[in-house]
Amino acid sequence: MLKACVLGASGYTGAELVRLLASHAKFSIAELCVSQHSEDANKCVSQVHPYLNGQVKGQLQALTNSKLAHLSQHMDAIFLATPHEASHDWMPILTTGNAKVFDLSGAFRLKDTQVFSQYYGFEHRHLSQLHSAQYGLAEWYGEQIQQAKIIAVPGCYPTASLTALKPLMENQLLDPSMRPVINAVSGVSGAGRKASLTSSFCEVSLQAYGVLGHRHQPEIAAYLGTDVIFTPHLGNFKRGILATITVKVHAGVTPQQVDSAFQQAYAEHPMIRLLPHFPKLDDVVKTPFCDLHWKLDAQSGYLVIGSAIDNLLKGAASQAIQCANLTFGYNSALGLIAGTES
Amino acid sequence: MLKACVLGASGYTGAELVRLLASHAKFSIAELCVSQHSEDANKCVSQVHPYLNGQVKGQLQALTNSKLAHLSQHMDAIFLATPHEASHDWMPILTTGNAKVFDLSGAFRLKDTQVFSQYYGFEHRHLSQLHSAQYGLAEWYGEQIQQAKIIAVPGCYPTASLTALKPLMENQLLDPSMRPVINAVSGVSGAGRKASLTSSFCEVSLQAYGVLGHRHQPEIAAYLGTDVIFTPHLGNFKRGILATITVKVHAGVTPQQVDSAFQQAYAEHPMIRLLPHFPKLDDVVKTPFCDLHWKLDAQSGYLVIGSAIDNLLKGAASQAIQCANLTFGYNSALGLIAGTES
Amino acid sequence: MLKACVLGASGYTGAELVRLLASHAKFSIAELCVSQHSEDANKCVSQVHPYLNGQVKGQLQALTNSKLAHLSQHMDAIFLATPHEASHDWMPILTTGNAKVFDLSGAFRLKDTQVFSQYYGFEHRHLSQLHSAQYGLAEWYGEQIQQAKIIAVPGCYPTASLTALKPLMENQLLDPSMRPVINAVSGVSGAGRKASLTSSFCEVSLQAYGVLGHRHQPEIAAYLGTDVIFTPHLGNFKRGILATITVKVHAGVTPQQVDSAFQQAYAEHPMIRLLPHFPKLDDVVKTPFCDLHWKLDAQSGYLVIGSAIDNLLKGAASQAIQCANLTFGYNSALGLIAGTES
Amino acid sequence: MLKACVLGASGYTGAELVRLLASHAKFSIAELCVSQHSEDANKCVSQVHPYLNGQVKGQLQALTNSKLAHLSQHMDAIFLATPHEASHDWMPILTTGNAKVFDLSGAFRLKDTQVFSQYYGFEHRHLSQLHSAQYGLAEWYGEQIQQAKIIAVPGCYPTASLTALKPLMENQLLDPSMRPVINAVSGVSGAGRKASLTSSFCEVSLQAYGVLGHRHQPEIAAYLGTDVIFTPHLGNFKRGILATITVKVHAGVTPQQVDSAFQQAYAEHPMIRLLPHFPKLDDVVKTPFCDLHWKLDAQSGYLVIGSAIDNLLKGAASQAIQCANLTFGYNSALGLIAGTES
Repeated sequence: MLKACVLGASGYTGAELVRLLASHAKFSIAELCVSQHSEDANKCVSQVHPYLNGQVKGQLQALTNSKLAHLSQHMDAIFLATPHEASHDWMPILTTGNAKVFDLSGAFRLKDTQVFSQYYGFEHRHLSQLHSAQYGLAEWYGEQIQQAKIIAVPGCYPTASLTALKPLMENQLLDPSMRPVINAVSGVSGAGRKASLTSSFCEVSLQAYGVLGHRHQPEIAAYLGTDVIFTPHLGNFKRGILATITVKVHAGVTPQQVDSAFQQAYAEHPMIRLLPHFPKLDDVVKTPFCDLHWKLDAQSGYLVIGSAIDNLLKGAASQAIQCANLTFGYNSALGLIAGTES
Repeated sequence: MLKACVLGASGYTGAELVRLLASHAKFSIAELCVSQHSEDANKCVSQVHPYLNGQVKGQLQALTNSKLAHLSQHMDAIFLATPHEASHDWMPILTTGNAKVFDLSGAFRLKDTQVFSQYYGFEHRHLSQLHSAQYGLAEWYGEQIQQAKIIAVPGCYPTASLTALKPLMENQLLDPSMRPVINAVSGVSGAGRKASLTSSFCEVSLQAYGVLGHRHQPEIAAYLGTDVIFTPHLGNFKRGILATITVKVHAGVTPQQVDSAFQQAYAEHPMIRLLPHFPKLDDVVKTPFCDLHWKLDAQSGYLVIGSAIDNLLKGAASQAIQCANLTFGYNSALGLIAGTES
Repeated sequence: MLKACVLGASGYTGAELVRLLASHAKFSIAELCVSQHSEDANKCVSQVHPYLNGQVKGQLQALTNSKLAHLSQHMDAIFLATPHEASHDWMPILTTGNAKVFDLSGAFRLKDTQVFSQYYGFEHRHLSQLHSAQYGLAEWYGEQIQQAKIIAVPGCYPTASLTALKPLMENQLLDPSMRPVINAVSGVSGAGRKASLTSSFCEVSLQAYGVLGHRHQPEIAAYLGTDVIFTPHLGNFKRGILATITVKVHAGVTPQQVDSAFQQAYAEHPMIRLLPHFPKLDDVVKTPFCDLHWKLDAQSGYLVIGSAIDNLLKGAASQAIQCANLTFGYNSALGLIAGTES
Repeated sequence: MLKACVLGASGYTGAELVRLLASHAKFSIAELCVSQHSEDANKCVSQVHPYLNGQVKGQLQALTNSKLAHLSQHMDAIFLATPHEASHDWMPILTTGNAKVFDLSGAFRLKDTQVFSQYYGFEHRHLSQLHSAQYGLAEWYGEQIQQAKIIAVPGCYPTASLTALKPLMENQLLDPSMRPVINAVSGVSGAGRKASLTSSFCEVSLQAYGVLGHRHQPEIAAYLGTDVIFTPHLGNFKRGILATITVKVHAGVTPQQVDSAFQQAYAEHPMIRLLPHFPKLDDVVKTPFCDLHWKLDAQSGYLVIGSAIDNLLKGAASQAIQCANLTFGYNSALGLIAGTES
């Protein structure tokens, strides 16, 4: 069994990582950690996340610098479900040993350091790690992920968006005269587990936010290869992202060409489900799948694509497991789809 | 007091009309009707809609042809919260008298009869009424509404969309090289009050529907004056529509020009609230308002507009009351915003 | 017009008071206040509660001691939608003038001072005001409310519970061998407008809390005249309380006796709706009503009563308005049910 | 591998059975069936329940009498997720072979045939099967389940209620002078997958139903051994039941005695989680667990117990799997809690 630890196990994504690792055939959970001054330190993980009762044991340890160094030496896989700044600060020490590091924050996703100061509010100071980090969009960078030591697991919105758009881009179907228009609605868990008026129950109601300025816009643009108009919304549900994407394709592109682009991209990827209807959010909630469907108005060239994921799973924890499976040479779906052989 | 009747008072929109008319200073409810074979016939309206208990009395009468003729002669205002086909079939007889008719169905909204066969599933046979009907987008056609006998109250999605787009179109700010992209999410009440698997509680979850083929697309296009890409979604809430609209404006258009277009259009219209932030759905639910906000990326020319209404009110019943107020020479907001003088 | 002010107008209950007063025929809003160090001070009330846009103007003033004294002298009605401690501390100064004070906190509801140290966490030091305060359960203490200077508006759970139980108690139908068992589910707005993990969207899910120790238990017991088992729950909705109450009646009590007790108590009270079916929560949300229904198993003597209110209205703001109407000699329903004459 | 079939696989419970069996180490799904005239016949199960895409294959077969006989001969386990009447009618033929039958309907749960005419609306005509059927409350009747051919899997409300009450009854702690008062709230999936106005999204809001007359009352009473007051409610969520139960214990009963009763009953049963706080519904949704917590007012003898389950799992499908595991000699938790060894 490979030894895994989860840093940031008190958050929603961290808890899902813990749940997935606990039932994974090839990983055993060696450590669960929270930041040094977290009020959840020394609690059982099932005390913080009672749904884990009876399924996962383990206490949340407070992180110290010496522990970070120790983890780097003694773990096979380190999962970071931590704030961007923490991942940024800890990465040099975490990469001193042999452990593979799977970072679910945004700190190592982009090569352009200007994005960090503009969108993340900090200066990136660990350029060597940044340059060696591999973006972990599992269906698209499988080979590179296998060889990387640092995997920057994609953001939730970018996963839903890129999964929908990359087959079109790779097949050069997109008409560059119009930027792809991505409207996405996310469940409130995307905001993390914390007290805040914005995510308090009575304040939540469907609303756009971060319009023309969300940090996932440069991430999508970087890995798609073109600018996009990305409008995220907060929805009145706990989990899931539904993205509806409108693009223009080149004149003359047929429905068959579009279908073929998606089939070709995902026929061998069980986590991407090409549906015969537009995806419904609840069908992916608590699953590792991304559901896709599309419709082309061949006459005008406008194409609408629907993409749905669970933001905490395919948009975070289960995609991290996919990456880890790839890194260690297992089937990408191991521990995610029942019946998968290693 | 003007005598008003509501046909289709057993539906969600009909009930809201009843509630608004019951507390309106200038209208008294003379008749509440349902279709001849409705199982709600002869029930009290508060039996079908218990929230009306203690506020509205009145029994639901079964409609007959003779009653239709009678209503036309003896009512001042007839509100049709009925299926498209019923409005279509009844309009000739309802317009034989002096009553003004406010039709909340889609049967008289469009001049192009082909739309009815293509999108509504019936052939339009009442062309004279169709041609004389006035589209009731209250903030834009106030003078024409005053003079019309038949007012075709706009659909819910078109109200949210046109309110957001017409100021830009009228000021010739839109770049025609890209169709406006309208993404909208509606509450389930938009589907009407009826048993159906699609709107059953366990089946409802955020999902696009009617993609590139919804009947509100031609309605929006007709009154905007340009084609649009309209993607409606069903959301997991009872009431409200949030539309997020992405357009391209002409090169060089400034934020000030956009602001000015909206200010100019709506400064005198209390039902349209120009907010300093993107609208949140619950802020308009159970209100007659349309909330608007927008943001321009001046460099690229992409503009995102948010528009929120209550689908049953500004998207149906309260807009019908606005129209009726205009028709009878009252302040458009009478009976809708507390404190409005007639 | 009577001059009214609302202290604590930044909260959910405060905002509802503001909305009701703004459209009330006999009150004008003279001041809106928040606590001295509130971050909402100097904001417009519609900035904090955007749903009030276009309906209510007015800025939130920071409270100082000198303002408190001034309000007492110059207001006709002071509404306190403030924390228990604030109401407690301010009451002496607020009662130095002629203003009537309507306190929506729990600080003056109970005569037994021990309850405050045990359940509210503070020692009550204003016994004179405490003893002169009148409990504002509007349908039961109308005459006393008319004569009081301080009205302690009941809590939300006690309003739902006492409205259901007092007719039975007054008619001596209850078998004292079993305590009334009150199970109630409240919307999250009952927890107030604040950042907290407990009321954050992802954490909210149906759950009992405060079992056998909630502060509303002694309030219900005091005004019912017998102990009760009160189990509150948090529900996954914003507004409303549904209480389901199980009692035992004396052997031989008939359904007719029970019906008669309720009819007699509430026939003249339009805010209490005696329904022919168990109440559904949404039928009372955003209304000033309390809906009641009951069913007796005459053989065993067990009686189940359902009671539903909007916690922010009949459970707080609209009941405060009822009290104010009574105090100033108006119809209790004025400004609450459309069409009520003063 | 044991051969299993699911009859009624188009419903919510049926789909969950399919999902659990598909990933179970000891069962393979040999047939999925729906009633002969179902509109879902011949569809793929993942077409009817799209969340199963990528996880379960298999087509829904229309049931005929000859198929029923065939299943009885060739299956090891037959799961009936069918209406009461269908289970009743088919049981004689389904039991002609060697298959074990796990019936999730109510048709074989009670020995008293009068209950069927009074509460289920049909006369029971298969008394031999009725008498040999074993009630499948897995934690309480494990040995009997092992030996039975027909297992009547308990209803959802009875599972939540009996799990909470039986430890007290078995330890003779309950004071018989007061009937246990069970208030329970269920998600809408409890009403089944069908078009109905009652379960349509806009109509659902917290409400009691079936007061003093629900068919689960006699089921609870029969297996508890005393009458209860059972008040079910419909809640605005899809899955889960939260029951809050108030009982009186004998004078002098201590908290330790109550704790001990629960510990003793469930220490060896991993599906029952004894929590240190009252259960929150979402912690059990999509899990096979029943969460319990309680609080005693030792002075008055009133005890409040909270019990939460997923109505489709512990209240139906996963309890059926527990029973099947027991019947075939496996660990009760096999296929339900990750990491369980057979």
